[in-house]
Amino acid sequence: MVAFFIHKTHIFWKILHYKSNLAIIRVINIIFTKGCMKMNQTLKVIASRYSCRAYDGVLPSREQLEAIALAAVQSPSGMNRQPWKIVVITDKSFIEEMDNEGMRILSELEDKAIYDRMMSRGGTLLYNAPCMFFILKKPNADLDCGIVSENIALAASSMDLGNCICGLARIPLSGEKGEAFKQKIGIEGEWEFGMAVLVGHAKGAGTPHEPDMSKIHFAD
Amino acid sequence: MVAFFIHKTHIFWKILHYKSNLAIIRVINIIFTKGCMKMNQTLKVIASRYSCRAYDGVLPSREQLEAIALAAVQSPSGMNRQPWKIVVITDKSFIEEMDNEGMRILSELEDKAIYDRMMSRGGTLLYNAPCMFFILKKPNADLDCGIVSENIALAASSMDLGNCICGLARIPLSGEKGEAFKQKIGIEGEWEFGMAVLVGHAKGAGTPHEPDMSKIHFAD
Repeated sequence: MVAFFIHKTHIFWKILHYKSNLAIIRVINIIFTKGCMKMNQTLKVIASRYSCRAYDGVLPSREQLEAIALAAVQSPSGMNRQPWKIVVITDKSFIEEMDNEGMRILSELEDKAIYDRMMSRGGTLLYNAPCMFFILKKPNADLDCGIVSENIALAASSMDLGNCICGLARIPLSGEKGEAFKQKIGIEGEWEFGMAVLVGHAKGAGTPHEPDMSKIHFAD
Repeated sequence: MVAFFIHKTHIFWKILHYKSNLAIIRVINIIFTKGCMKMNQTLKVIASRYSCRAYDGVLPSREQLEAIALAAVQSPSGMNRQPWKIVVITDKSFIEEMDNEGMRILSELEDKAIYDRMMSRGGTLLYNAPCMFFILKKPNADLDCGIVSENIALAASSMDLGNCICGLARIPLSGEKGEAFKQKIGIEGEWEFGMAVLVGHAKGAGTPHEPDMSKIHFAD
């Protein structure tokens, strides 16, 4: 209850501070927030990010896409080997073709679990996303690839762009059109599909999963 | 050249704004920065994060460690399976014991490459870090584990804490003391060592790797 009150008071002063921008308010703000955990933007972005499964189809600005791509290649990697590269796909007809082919493949699987789930979510594989960040990786670079995935996701979220780390994007690569898709994406030679991250403007709101605090253990 | 000028001017006005906090400066600031890519805190944290290999040994506050642990369990995972858990180790003598054992094992390897590199970096395996975030994972969950690693790293960086995703932390687990270490960390049954992230206050400054822009390809 006290924490709730302090939190609300904190927001109140933040707003007042923003509106008036006076030094005295800043001082009062500091007094009130002293002792409260200041949640910076990065922590807020991590806390509020969710897997967006509905996009309005409008392409984010080139500036935003470049900022996300830059964040991707700023990822740390084991021994700084950087066993990955980033391919940004914004070709709407290509994404639609991948989507259709993916859904066709899923519909023909004996186990209809994934297909049924996708149908219940709107009947698309890629949720009408206007852009896909493909992470191509070298063999045995899954962990490094995960790091890049999260940098892309958080960079997008930090600019209020919806995003989804989408392992299902590998499905269309397994069918008869797979080779053509791979060629367009640049998956050849030593390069493998690592992960795809969908990016775009969210259609509607979404909420993150409730964190499972039982997964944290302090062994002091 | 123009971009450089605008960038520097932007920084100048930011400083002036910070120092004087006057509304007029804010207005001028907005005029000057309009059109420039606004780099939010998350993008700045991603851009400036580096692998910290020298810590002052002082433990961050419990509040900070809890914020980082929370960021870890807020990680997305495939099908939201969350095939990981987080163990935060702050026991200095335990970390030192792991460090000593790791260096002993490295010194006895036929290939002295890693040992020599660690010796050139100060002669420690864990860089005097006061805290280790162990990510325990289920089999085949490397990519999910990479996502968690980066959330921990960025959460720490966002609070100006040094951090290092440290695969070498698995070395001490391979020696004769390995079982005792695993028991303390909770690596048993289906749980495997996933990754360790060192966290603490950086001793001195560090710089990130220059991003390799050739790894980005826009396939419009």
